[in-house]
Amino acid sequence: MPSPAVPVSHADLLEKPLFAHLATVRPDGAPQSSVMWFAWDGRRVRFTHTRTRQKFRNLAHESRVALSIRDEGNPYRFLEVRGVVESIEPDPGAAFYVSLQKRYGVAYPVLDADVRVVITVRPSKYIAVERGMTEREMAAFKKTLES
Amino acid sequence: MPSPAVPVSHADLLEKPLFAHLATVRPDGAPQSSVMWFAWDGRRVRFTHTRTRQKFRNLAHESRVALSIRDEGNPYRFLEVRGVVESIEPDPGAAFYVSLQKRYGVAYPVLDADVRVVITVRPSKYIAVERGMTEREMAAFKKTLES
Repeated sequence: MPSPAVPVSHADLLEKPLFAHLATVRPDGAPQSSVMWFAWDGRRVRFTHTRTRQKFRNLAHESRVALSIRDEGNPYRFLEVRGVVESIEPDPGAAFYVSLQKRYGVAYPVLDADVRVVITVRPSKYIAVERGMTEREMAAFKKTLES
Repeated sequence: MPSPAVPVSHADLLEKPLFAHLATVRPDGAPQSSVMWFAWDGRRVRFTHTRTRQKFRNLAHESRVALSIRDEGNPYRFLEVRGVVESIEPDPGAAFYVSLQKRYGVAYPVLDADVRVVITVRPSKYIAVERGMTEREMAAFKKTLES
């Protein structure tokens, strides 16, 4: 299935090294929400992670995820990306992890290269929010104002 | 069941008018993530919402939620709150909604008071993250450094 196009108005939020709040579902069905680095190549969102943590187990159980990224300068503007984990692959020599460190302007020693993985998410839906409202909500709001 | 205590180190993130990224689970089991205002009284997290939107339907189906709030000045410091929706009640005259507007320093006309609700979440677990790591992860990291 081809992925939908990113809303042009909000593409910058994926291009910049911002912080994604990633929602996953735990094996018992409850959600989890955590702050993550990400990479974006115009088609896929990628995360670095380790095989040893809860989120890894969540994703093995439920591959659907959602992430929200907000504009640092304007919290009422954000992008939600819903998608599916397409692959979880080893990260030999932590090359991907190191590339993310560069994107985020930090340099840490890598002590867990052996358990590092690359999580690739294929977006299935984008929800762009401007002034705290989705396009649909804005249309309904305008209708209320007119009536 | 009594709620656990908020980690003292991260209580400020609930006290300040920051932006919570709320994870809910849709009726089909997929997660959703969106940016929300919230109120905090030392025991419960409260959100304003309307009866007409998807999140309302999600919560009617799955009452467990998770939210993450990050420090505006330090993205590697954040608090995740997992909890359960304890109640969803009408917001007569949108009084709660207006109190949140004040907390966040804005003033909008209220056009949807009739469908406004107050969502009350009882926290069941707090996960405090400092320097990108939970306490448990930090302990494991230190062990790796020593070995």
